[in-house]
Amino acid sequence: MPSATLQPSVVTEIPGPKSKAAAQELDAVFDSRAIHFVVDYDKSEGNYIVDVDGNRFLDVYSQIASIPVGYNNKTLIDAAQSPEMVSALVNRPAIGNFPSKSWHNVLQEGLLRVAPEGLDKVFTAQSGSEANELAFKAAFMLYRRKERGEGVDWSAHEISSCLENSKPGSPELAVLSFANSFHGRGFGSLSTTRSKAVHKLDIPSFNWPQAPFPALKYPLEQNAKENEAEEQRCLAEVERLITSWHCPVAALIVEPIQSEGGDNHASAAFFQGLRDLTKKHNVVMIVDEVQTGFGATGKFWGHQHWNLTSPPDIVTFSKKAQTAGYLFGDSMLVPDKAYRQFNTWIGDPARVMMSRAVIREILDKNLVEQTARVGDVLYGELSKLADKYPEQIQNLRGKGQGTYIAFDNKKAAEFVAAMKRLGVNVGTCGVHTVRLRPMLIFDESHIPILLSAMEKVISSL
Amino acid sequence: MPSATLQPSVVTEIPGPKSKAAAQELDAVFDSRAIHFVVDYDKSEGNYIVDVDGNRFLDVYSQIASIPVGYNNKTLIDAAQSPEMVSALVNRPAIGNFPSKSWHNVLQEGLLRVAPEGLDKVFTAQSGSEANELAFKAAFMLYRRKERGEGVDWSAHEISSCLENSKPGSPELAVLSFANSFHGRGFGSLSTTRSKAVHKLDIPSFNWPQAPFPALKYPLEQNAKENEAEEQRCLAEVERLITSWHCPVAALIVEPIQSEGGDNHASAAFFQGLRDLTKKHNVVMIVDEVQTGFGATGKFWGHQHWNLTSPPDIVTFSKKAQTAGYLFGDSMLVPDKAYRQFNTWIGDPARVMMSRAVIREILDKNLVEQTARVGDVLYGELSKLADKYPEQIQNLRGKGQGTYIAFDNKKAAEFVAAMKRLGVNVGTCGVHTVRLRPMLIFDESHIPILLSAMEKVISSL
Repeated sequence: MPSATLQPSVVTEIPGPKSKAAAQELDAVFDSRAIHFVVDYDKSEGNYIVDVDGNRFLDVYSQIASIPVGYNNKTLIDAAQSPEMVSALVNRPAIGNFPSKSWHNVLQEGLLRVAPEGLDKVFTAQSGSEANELAFKAAFMLYRRKERGEGVDWSAHEISSCLENSKPGSPELAVLSFANSFHGRGFGSLSTTRSKAVHKLDIPSFNWPQAPFPALKYPLEQNAKENEAEEQRCLAEVERLITSWHCPVAALIVEPIQSEGGDNHASAAFFQGLRDLTKKHNVVMIVDEVQTGFGATGKFWGHQHWNLTSPPDIVTFSKKAQTAGYLFGDSMLVPDKAYRQFNTWIGDPARVMMSRAVIREILDKNLVEQTARVGDVLYGELSKLADKYPEQIQNLRGKGQGTYIAFDNKKAAEFVAAMKRLGVNVGTCGVHTVRLRPMLIFDESHIPILLSAMEKVISSL
Repeated sequence: MPSATLQPSVVTEIPGPKSKAAAQELDAVFDSRAIHFVVDYDKSEGNYIVDVDGNRFLDVYSQIASIPVGYNNKTLIDAAQSPEMVSALVNRPAIGNFPSKSWHNVLQEGLLRVAPEGLDKVFTAQSGSEANELAFKAAFMLYRRKERGEGVDWSAHEISSCLENSKPGSPELAVLSFANSFHGRGFGSLSTTRSKAVHKLDIPSFNWPQAPFPALKYPLEQNAKENEAEEQRCLAEVERLITSWHCPVAALIVEPIQSEGGDNHASAAFFQGLRDLTKKHNVVMIVDEVQTGFGATGKFWGHQHWNLTSPPDIVTFSKKAQTAGYLFGDSMLVPDKAYRQFNTWIGDPARVMMSRAVIREILDKNLVEQTARVGDVLYGELSKLADKYPEQIQNLRGKGQGTYIAFDNKKAAEFVAAMKRLGVNVGTCGVHTVRLRPMLIFDESHIPILLSAMEKVISSL
């Protein structure tokens, strides 16, 4: 593993002069205000990202948690160079009408190979936002199908009113989400996102309910009783909202770990409680695994930590999947007529093929198991650092969740800026949380590099 | 041009037994009810699509109007095989944070090379739905920015209320669209789509206004006065809605030709009228060129037929672009803060590179000019056929609009099924409209094939 021998190397200020110049040039035609640095992807490799100034960073941010198996991964390069990839790029199909003869195999050998138990069907999409909205639509159509009665055809009034965005054709139905959640930025998904004003301000939204997400106290072992009460409070509020909202709640969407919103965790019991409530009230349970899916928690899917008595109704994915969509099991979630859940492209076979290569690499190299193992070591080391610097590493969380680890630091933004200057690319979330999102190929050899930079930064802040 | 020598060849019923079996197998994991036939893309070439049963069709549907320059196009294959494509596939960036050093060039040599006059900035996306929603968000943020006053920061009340999906942070603002329009299937874009119940039923929507779109009578020359009055009626209704809606109308979205909704045309004067009204009332004018853009109307952009006194504020694109996004000119449409118009991937550089190759091919081969020329010939021939079979080819439309030609036939669905049996793949839209959507490489040699099949079908129906 050549990446293990590499070390970070910082030769300029960050961003460097070439990055700054490139971003400035780009800004005339493409908003560049959020650029961290401009990248030389040809020189990036494995866990290391190299910028145009020649700075090499250990990347534990991984393109906002979306690079699964490293830069210029050989298995992915082979997939990208394959003749069927060339055909998928050149002959982009309207998959719903004219799928390629290989489409079934691409799904079977890829996404369906890692589908969680009970969810054996897939609808492909292009982003996590789109995947979540498609899941909402499936839930809404199912709700009305049940309400209408099986086999009852659409009424003329429903048909005419929906074209006017009016009831009954355009019904008032809601998706329940949680405070501090992030589910995307489309008008439907953004109505369930509750993380930050910068995502939502000035954008019209649906009047949908928001439940509190448990605010657990750390360390967990010392706050077990209080945390259990907090989770019970949140579950009670979920049930109160479902049963009292001004319109029916057709679906509930929840992240296994609230990521953008601050890496907020809850217990398996809490999620089992959600499964019980959604079953009880006939609410479609959507688990948003856009960030938690594909192995980083030490299981392939974050919700597999819960041992639910029955699987979630829908699991959405994107990011490290390198494509997007939703998995489901109940064929009633396929709408009653064709063309209801439909669009021109329905995803992108080229990206679904890349996803298949990612899955092959993850399974062949046992990267989920590696992430579980490495995450345990990393968490242990971070615990020691937290003991040494309790003011700088607060609320350390993610134990037993692979490398999906985070902690609070009142100067989180300064912390990550200082880390970059030491050659470690790391991100924030929530208000003052540092989130670690290494790739699945992050291994024991990278831990000292990360910890050494952290300790240097901590002692300097 | 080898494709010119090819002829359609139908050797089985349509769909053939292999297509049926493949679709049935797929259906267990992926909704297959809308499949026309399953495709062998390796054997497809130029204007011809070949199915798994060995049937070869002249394709004038082109993956729902999204294949620009033919199957297995050499220029596109070269792009797909290039080292930078491999890197884009393997190292998928979060473009807003960590763009590649080549990103600026990819935009300049691609999308910005064909940007309409006055629109020199771009935001990339992955679908037409997403592009339109991003345009709506840009318009809403601009509206509130002006209302708030330049330099006035967000209030605490705005910040807290938007997280609750409440006013003032989540304002009531509207996008006006037209009856029979299609702008996508996300919750925001679907609220502006007004084409068919199958797109909209059971999905909650925003209470946004819908104006009538001119219902022109054909032939245009014989109905000039009546059509002008119809367009004036619609314009008056647009103004009435803008000035009387229950909330501010921040944007108007319109297709140059309503495509999914039935290939409905309006005059340049009508669109100039919309430009005047949107200017007068400070409404952002969004032209949805998802289907009309990239040459099929005989100009690169459909709105270039209008000679507007000032360009549209935003032009959205997808389909034949092989990527998606919006073009704009006013830097006020870039939100006041970073990360407001943002998402993890912000499009897909691999697809933007494919778009660059499409653009190169279109410009190098003068395919827009070819489409204008071939479209004129095709329209002339169809006029003769319409004279001969006036009951079967009604309301022929698209004169002077390249190959973007359509007509009504009361048995449109049977018509296109019969055309498939003769080896021509063609689509419908609206209620009983046959729409021609050949690729830009459709040339004079394909006209007799298309016409001959049409006449056979017409005389048999």
